[in-house]
Formats: sequence, structure tokens, C-alpha cells
Amino acid sequence: MESKLVEFVPNFSEGRDQEVIQKLVDTAKNIPGIKLLDAEWDRDHNRSVFTMVGSPEGAEEAAVQLCRCAMENIDMTKHQGSHPRMGATDVMPFVPVKNMTIDECVELSKRVARRIWDELKIPSFLYGDSATSPKRRNLAKVRKGQFEGMPEKLLQDEWAPDYGGRKIHPTAGIVAIGARKPLVAFNVILGTDNLEIANKIARIVRASNGGFRSCKGIGVKMEERGVVQVSMNMVDYEDTPLYRAFETIRFEAKRYGVPIVGSEIIGLTPAKALIDAAEYYLRIENFDYSKQVLENHLI
Amino acid sequence: MESKLVEFVPNFSEGRDQEVIQKLVDTAKNIPGIKLLDAEWDRDHNRSVFTMVGSPEGAEEAAVQLCRCAMENIDMTKHQGSHPRMGATDVMPFVPVKNMTIDECVELSKRVARRIWDELKIPSFLYGDSATSPKRRNLAKVRKGQFEGMPEKLLQDEWAPDYGGRKIHPTAGIVAIGARKPLVAFNVILGTDNLEIANKIARIVRASNGGFRSCKGIGVKMEERGVVQVSMNMVDYEDTPLYRAFETIRFEAKRYGVPIVGSEIIGLTPAKALIDAAEYYLRIENFDYSKQVLENHLI
Repeated sequence: MESKLVEFVPNFSEGRDQEVIQKLVDTAKNIPGIKLLDAEWDRDHNRSVFTMVGSPEGAEEAAVQLCRCAMENIDMTKHQGSHPRMGATDVMPFVPVKNMTIDECVELSKRVARRIWDELKIPSFLYGDSATSPKRRNLAKVRKGQFEGMPEKLLQDEWAPDYGGRKIHPTAGIVAIGARKPLVAFNVILGTDNLEIANKIARIVRASNGGFRSCKGIGVKMEERGVVQVSMNMVDYEDTPLYRAFETIRFEAKRYGVPIVGSEIIGLTPAKALIDAAEYYLRIENFDYSKQVLENHLI
Repeated sequence: MESKLVEFVPNFSEGRDQEVIQKLVDTAKNIPGIKLLDAEWDRDHNRSVFTMVGSPEGAEEAAVQLCRCAMENIDMTKHQGSHPRMGATDVMPFVPVKNMTIDECVELSKRVARRIWDELKIPSFLYGDSATSPKRRNLAKVRKGQFEGMPEKLLQDEWAPDYGGRKIHPTAGIVAIGARKPLVAFNVILGTDNLEIANKIARIVRASNGGFRSCKGIGVKMEERGVVQVSMNMVDYEDTPLYRAFETIRFEAKRYGVPIVGSEIIGLTPAKALIDAAEYYLRIENFDYSKQVLENHLI
């Protein structure tokens, strides 16, 4: 079908108060044109993450209503948690799923940012593919200083909000809004307990040390199992396919006599990220993903 | 979502008369609860194949209405074509797609067979997983004798129709109705022009010579390219995964010094048939297909 679908993954600075979380869930469930697929929260992080999919119009409405609900129920001046944060609604990425381009998600993020300023007086930074300058692409840099440091940060020349004045909302802070590609969390497990080997290989595959452009990665211990993994975020699986990272890890690990013993996909993945791997390994010629996969005719 | 989805692939004995084909297409398009994804026809075969997906109720209604339309517009006493056939509507398989079991498809096929006899007086054989005896599983055996031979065949002890009397419909013949698993047409291309090698390997992988239970296969020449392929029908990709046939062909071809140079998927495939291959090659542990693939939440 030709209907546009977008994934919307708002993060809220509340992972403890069940009543507030329930209000956010109820709000999310009552917006036409978009579905709540998943809601997860964490006490330590004191943060919740919703996964929603629907029409761009539904996502826009969900963003505004959820921001309002978070503003009315979360007071950032009293918030504590181990995860970096700067707003009651902390970050709202829009991800293309079907019949949507990343540019359309950028436009959607700007419409949302404007409404959230106009209707709620919450300022915002555009980040990711919506960023208005290179240093705003990276969420960690945008959020640096966190809620407590924002009043001062907003007065710096280069950190004027994209929407709103140079003051945070007193209790809701400021929100990062942007478009990004779907992200696949892909961990490759090595047959060794030597974390240094996982870290060396992570540096080889990840962009920040000269590896693949759309791969982030670190070495991580799997304590119970007594092995290590290269834990990756594939931030654009069409730019850096999963199989390419996997095969590179395989031949680099070989130098240490270490085999790959398994892998994990954490959370959701678009079907295409895995079907691309099947195409590679089965050497399928001229495969037309959108036409030949039955499910694509049903969404 | 929890709604049931079934694929319905009726075959009609008309591949030449555009007016008749258009009537069938129009009928298919106007049935609530089911969508026509594809309609193809072939002059030589004088046959058309529709692919539809929708609710069981939609599929049932489509089956009855399309059978009626074919009966009113196709006269089998005048039909000629290179493809074996026994009825105006020749065969109607029902294939589980989502939240449907094969048993539910068997029940659906029986409801349809009953209605087609009650409402249209067209008799039917149940075939595939709906078959009422082992020799009726195989469509080729059911159809043997074709339209012209059916009056005599139906009088044989073992070939009484499952629904209807022992007489074909005078112009619409008799129809095969049944449930089957999704079928993936998967061809593996070898780096040789030696058809005998492809045939030898086809005999190794296919069920009929002792190979994998849910694989059919033959050797085929690709004339233009000057190579051969093992052309397979994977009739249950969960029973015989694509990667298993592929890897078996790889190690068998090695004996002749022949490499696999590519493969093809012809037509539609369920996403899972390929994602199973990605799981194998990327060694993904504990992957939950229905929960972790984003698209499964959208259908």
C-alpha cells in the first residue's frame, strides 16, 4: 500500500512513578493514526522509552500531546537518574519506516518543534538528520551539561535553541527533536574472555576510529557466560550492512585465534536489515525487496 | 495485531481473452476484506494466476464469487493450452500468512468446497494438506487425465469427488481446493554449463530421491548465460530452510570443482524464509521473529 509510516520513539524523564508512566501510556494509546508498540522504563535511569508507529499526522499529534502530558507531570528540578537528560520529554526521534524519506522525517520534526514551542512554550534543539549545524547532529553533544547546565548553555553563541527563546521551560527543560535512520543494536559474541580483543575489534569496525561510517561499537564483557562481545549500534544498516560488520569482526578475530560464537539483535529490527544479510550469504541476484517480500504488500 | 491473514492463489483456465480476464480481475477487486496483489496470465498456458491476501472470510467470498465468474465465462469444452487443467477454476490453494494455522486453512478450504457445490454445482477434490487420502495430496495426480478424462476418472472407486456427485460440471469441470504452506521458488546457479551436474545435485537435495523432505528440484539450463541451475520449490521453508539446501548444493558442487555463482528467488517470498537464513549465517541467538521484526507489529 502507499500509506506513509513513521516510527516515533519518545524518551521521557520518568521511570519510577507508575501513575505518571500510566498517564503517558494512556495518552499514547488514545491518538488516532498511531499505535503504541512498546513502552519500557528503568528505575535507575529514571527514564521511559516508548515505541510508536503510524502516520506522520498521528506521530505529530502524539508528540505534542505526550510533551504536554510530560510537562504537566514531570518536574525536572526534582529529577534524578543515572541517564543523561535535559527535559521532561528528553528526546523525540522520527524514523522512516515505509513510503517515507528521511527528508520527510526532518520536515515532520520541524513541524513538531514549532508546535511544541507555540503551544507549550518548550524550546527545542533539532538533532540527528534534522540538525542545523554539524555539532548538533550528535545527541550526546546537544545534551551535554544536562538539565542543570542548560540555562547557561543556551546563552552561548552557538547553542541558541532552534525553536524558542534562550531560556529553558522552568520545569520541562528543553527537548531534542530530530529525524534519524532506523537503528539496529547488533552484538557479536567472541569465544574469549579477553575484553581487550573485543575493544580492539570495536575500534576497527566503528566509524569514530576509521571503521565503517554507520557503525558505533564498544567491547563489553558478558560476565555470566565468561565471554566478550563487540556491542554495536548500526545507525544506518543500508550504509553499513550487518553482514559487513560481522565478516570484518570474523577475520579480525582470526588473528587472535578467536572464533565468533554467536550474535544478538537487541529489540526491534526492520526486516530489511536481516534480509540484506540473507541476500549476501545466499548470493541472491536482482532481488526486489519491496515487491518480492509478501509482507510488504500488507503494511 | 491479531487479525488472521490468508493468501489465496486461484488459477483460472483463461490466459487469452482479455475481456474474461478483466471480469475476473474486477470481481477479485470488489470483495471486502481481501486484496488482489497480483494477476498474471500466459497465452501459451492459456491460464491466469491471481495472488490475493486478506481475511479468511474475504478469501471464502472471493473463492465463491470468482468460481461463479469463471463458470459463467469459461467453457472448458473449448479450452486449449499447454498447462494441465481440469476446470474453469482449476485450483484454489489457501496459504497461512499470519495468525492462521494450516489446519484453519484446511477448514477454510472445506467450507469453500461445500459452498461451491451447494451454490454453483461444481464438484471438487480436496488436495494438499486438505487431502482426504494420501494419493490426493499431490495436485498432479489429482489432475491426471485433465478435463477431458475426468468424466471417466470420477467413476473410478478411488476418485469420487470430495464434494459433489460423480459428474463434472458440463462446462466448468471440477476444481482442486486445498491448504498448503507458502512456497518459495529458489534457484541456485552453478558455474558450469553441464546440465548433468545440476541434475545430479537436484536429485541429492529433493525429497523424491531421498533428499530434504520439503524440497522439490530439477536441473535447468540458463541458455543465454551458458550456465545451469538447480531450480527448486521449497514447499515448507520451516521444514527445509533455504540455507540448508544452499549449503548442501555448495558442498556437493565442490566435488565437481563447480562453484555456486548466484541464486534467484522467483516471485513472492515470506520475509521469514530469508530472515531464517540471516539468523543462520549471522549466528543470531534467541531471535524472536514475531516480536523483534518491526513489520510484524504493523500487519
